[in-house]
Amino acid sequence: MRPVIDLNADVGEGFGVWPPGHDDQVIPLVTSANVACGFHAGDPGVMRRTVALAAARGVAVGAHPGFPDLLGFGRRRLDASPREVRDYCVYQIGALWATARAERVRLQHVKAHGALYNLAAVDDDLARAIAEAVASVDGDLILLALPGSAMERAGAAAGLRVAREAFADRSYQPDGTLTPRGRPGAVLGDPPVVVDRAVRLVTTGAVETVAGTALRLECDSLCVHGDNPRAPELLRALRRGLEAAGVRLAPLGAVLEEATGRDR
Amino acid sequence: MRPVIDLNADVGEGFGVWPPGHDDQVIPLVTSANVACGFHAGDPGVMRRTVALAAARGVAVGAHPGFPDLLGFGRRRLDASPREVRDYCVYQIGALWATARAERVRLQHVKAHGALYNLAAVDDDLARAIAEAVASVDGDLILLALPGSAMERAGAAAGLRVAREAFADRSYQPDGTLTPRGRPGAVLGDPPVVVDRAVRLVTTGAVETVAGTALRLECDSLCVHGDNPRAPELLRALRRGLEAAGVRLAPLGAVLEEATGRDR
Amino acid sequence: MRPVIDLNADVGEGFGVWPPGHDDQVIPLVTSANVACGFHAGDPGVMRRTVALAAARGVAVGAHPGFPDLLGFGRRRLDASPREVRDYCVYQIGALWATARAERVRLQHVKAHGALYNLAAVDDDLARAIAEAVASVDGDLILLALPGSAMERAGAAAGLRVAREAFADRSYQPDGTLTPRGRPGAVLGDPPVVVDRAVRLVTTGAVETVAGTALRLECDSLCVHGDNPRAPELLRALRRGLEAAGVRLAPLGAVLEEATGRDR
Amino acid sequence: MRPVIDLNADVGEGFGVWPPGHDDQVIPLVTSANVACGFHAGDPGVMRRTVALAAARGVAVGAHPGFPDLLGFGRRRLDASPREVRDYCVYQIGALWATARAERVRLQHVKAHGALYNLAAVDDDLARAIAEAVASVDGDLILLALPGSAMERAGAAAGLRVAREAFADRSYQPDGTLTPRGRPGAVLGDPPVVVDRAVRLVTTGAVETVAGTALRLECDSLCVHGDNPRAPELLRALRRGLEAAGVRLAPLGAVLEEATGRDR
Repeated sequence: MRPVIDLNADVGEGFGVWPPGHDDQVIPLVTSANVACGFHAGDPGVMRRTVALAAARGVAVGAHPGFPDLLGFGRRRLDASPREVRDYCVYQIGALWATARAERVRLQHVKAHGALYNLAAVDDDLARAIAEAVASVDGDLILLALPGSAMERAGAAAGLRVAREAFADRSYQPDGTLTPRGRPGAVLGDPPVVVDRAVRLVTTGAVETVAGTALRLECDSLCVHGDNPRAPELLRALRRGLEAAGVRLAPLGAVLEEATGRDR
Repeated sequence: MRPVIDLNADVGEGFGVWPPGHDDQVIPLVTSANVACGFHAGDPGVMRRTVALAAARGVAVGAHPGFPDLLGFGRRRLDASPREVRDYCVYQIGALWATARAERVRLQHVKAHGALYNLAAVDDDLARAIAEAVASVDGDLILLALPGSAMERAGAAAGLRVAREAFADRSYQPDGTLTPRGRPGAVLGDPPVVVDRAVRLVTTGAVETVAGTALRLECDSLCVHGDNPRAPELLRALRRGLEAAGVRLAPLGAVLEEATGRDR
Repeated sequence: MRPVIDLNADVGEGFGVWPPGHDDQVIPLVTSANVACGFHAGDPGVMRRTVALAAARGVAVGAHPGFPDLLGFGRRRLDASPREVRDYCVYQIGALWATARAERVRLQHVKAHGALYNLAAVDDDLARAIAEAVASVDGDLILLALPGSAMERAGAAAGLRVAREAFADRSYQPDGTLTPRGRPGAVLGDPPVVVDRAVRLVTTGAVETVAGTALRLECDSLCVHGDNPRAPELLRALRRGLEAAGVRLAPLGAVLEEATGRDR
Repeated sequence: MRPVIDLNADVGEGFGVWPPGHDDQVIPLVTSANVACGFHAGDPGVMRRTVALAAARGVAVGAHPGFPDLLGFGRRRLDASPREVRDYCVYQIGALWATARAERVRLQHVKAHGALYNLAAVDDDLARAIAEAVASVDGDLILLALPGSAMERAGAAAGLRVAREAFADRSYQPDGTLTPRGRPGAVLGDPPVVVDRAVRLVTTGAVETVAGTALRLECDSLCVHGDNPRAPELLRALRRGLEAAGVRLAPLGAVLEEATGRDR
């Protein structure tokens, strides 16, 4: 049985006068916050306020770098070269590193955003570009990745600690991939269903697929999409459900340390 | 007599397909390079290549943060609040800090760019915003400032080492301010004249003003404008002239250390 | 007695994933909509959807150009030259002109945004830059300006039809200027008060100042700030109050035509 | 025999302080200029100066819209939807339309830039998005396209006049596609070779492929890449060679009119 898990969400995704979703409600409910770094969303002021909010609640912060596509929120594939992607990640991680330092907080992790995350899950060159960017800035940073992805392998090859995440509010297919958005049942919104699946996953290491089969899934963190208007409600239900099942919540760093202690 | 001085220039001021001036010629001739950080010029790739070029030549690198005005090259006044300016500086310093670290180089200093430099020379609130941004990211960074400016005072108040720069290719007025660009004789282009003034300044601590009077001017660094097409020629003449006068050239950090050793 | 008035509001002030306020409620309640053009807010998609919404409701559209400062929402002074401002306005007006044309709508007017509006109210060079930009693109466009401002004079000098606007939700000082935001009583939020003032202004041509004196104020349009969360409520009250007082509502173009017919 | 041909080049590809290549030399040598519109390059000031330069030389101007990717100069594939591409094109065409109008010039044509051009040559949905954008703004605009491309078909389907271009400085493969850049012989730089090929193409309607076979190629315009440092030299040689072969040079609009007169 897994005694401890991290909850992560994307935050700080505002820009200028446009506010970042429901961060004031979401941040206190997670243990790790992925903070946008100014390329797909976020600006220097939003980043500072987001980090300050996380710091005040004891929530660990990570950099959430994306493609330079504010207009498309980093959700559109851009044919940037691995060298460009590496440069973009170094830049964004540095910007958030300094923001965190100015708020007397240590950066915990890095998680790629949107199209960059999806591409790097299957493209070894992009995955390596991201992992090497992280390692070149700070080898102590944790890379948050999809289990079984190119990103996970690239992180390990770069000598990084890699944390694996599962999606609490998404359904899985028998091959372990997420059901594509748009297909019926891809996104799960019913709190009891989400909580049951999460508890089973964390305590047994398996989740039921859309085909009804059991899928083994190693995970150190559960992701809840912060832009989901029901995210606060879902997070509250998850916290209650997990705690009732005897699962502790802790930031990624602590989760990995305990896992290492248990001979992961 | 002053045995040692730094030479600094603004570099990395390209963007995307637009190349950054004559950096390949300028960088090997200076001892400290102020690298644009993406707001008024520079992008993640330009920054990396610029830092790598400096590192290969043993030239120290500093962050050169500016207003978020790529269209106006950071030369236009923008009524950003001190809080916004502080956030902008933290962000840009962090981005370059990480770029430097990925190239295994340590950031040496920070120098504000363009309109931000000019405003912070006379505006205590903006000067404090910049100095506190620097101090909050890394208290070991040197702040490069105009002697007698609000920036110099704010740096000292924030506990930073402050280096003072003089302009080798600009004339001074009796009150110690630069002759405004556009007035005759504001910009000096004749190498022998520039060299004579620089040698006198460094060895005697004084420079002749446009009125013919002597102006006492403490300085740790001489700035040459990198976008001047004659910058390489001027820099070569300066190096020769200063060395012939027995002045050593060294990066800012070394200059300040020697000054401290001499009971500055 | 003035039989007819226009109601205008700033709309289309979203960007990418960030939605533009309460446009779906505000647009049907005004007669002229000032549409952001991509510099301070707005993007090609937001602009098209905003124009389509206005067209479907018979609301006239105008261009709302601002400074190139997405981060500051065009609310910060930027020291752009008159030549730059003219170029920025031509560009933005053209972008919205084409968007309107693609939706089979004719552009009615131009109103400067934020800091550009405020600066051009008192700076003759900037006012002329804007007026000449409008005239050079389409001399049939109406320029919407503050009564008594440099903008109003520049529009007339450029041969444009100029419409004058009053602010329904702001208080005035005896000299005709708006009470600066931040001072008590600067912004009026109570619907009955706003309605009474508007009815008096439109039917008698005068409004009561903060000093209790009467201020004569010629106006063709009443502006309600669309980003005010109470804007829809205020607009509904205004429409009811004005119609009850026998005032018709019509787009700027129609208001000016009637005024001309009455020997304005 | 073809009596008349247009010469086109991409111009206005600067931004802010970064100048647009060799436009002052290139513009007087072409008959149609494709002007960048601010998304991949160009800004309101560069656009105005570029249009003014073309107008002064009697060179026709067209809009050269690209992806919103200043950092990548519009050369990188971006997964924008057809609806987004249509909106981007309407916006950019409008911005240049107004710039031209302010300089008392009529917009002649539209040519997509970089990755957008390449994608729309083979993607029917993107091609239709561009063609419909052009038609919705001004049905008199000419669409400049690769012969045999999806873009050519979409232009015809949208009721536009379509002009076809050949590349004077590129080699062709037997199937009519360009030899991909990077392969030996893809780019032709030797003026006599380029001129011979161009003369043969224009006077006989055929060009020799890399395999030595003859390729029939209908074309109304020859494109020379303006960012090629040898572009001015190449253009001068082309003008001389074509004129010596009895071919007149004229802007696209005139070329199409004559073609129509000859029962095209």
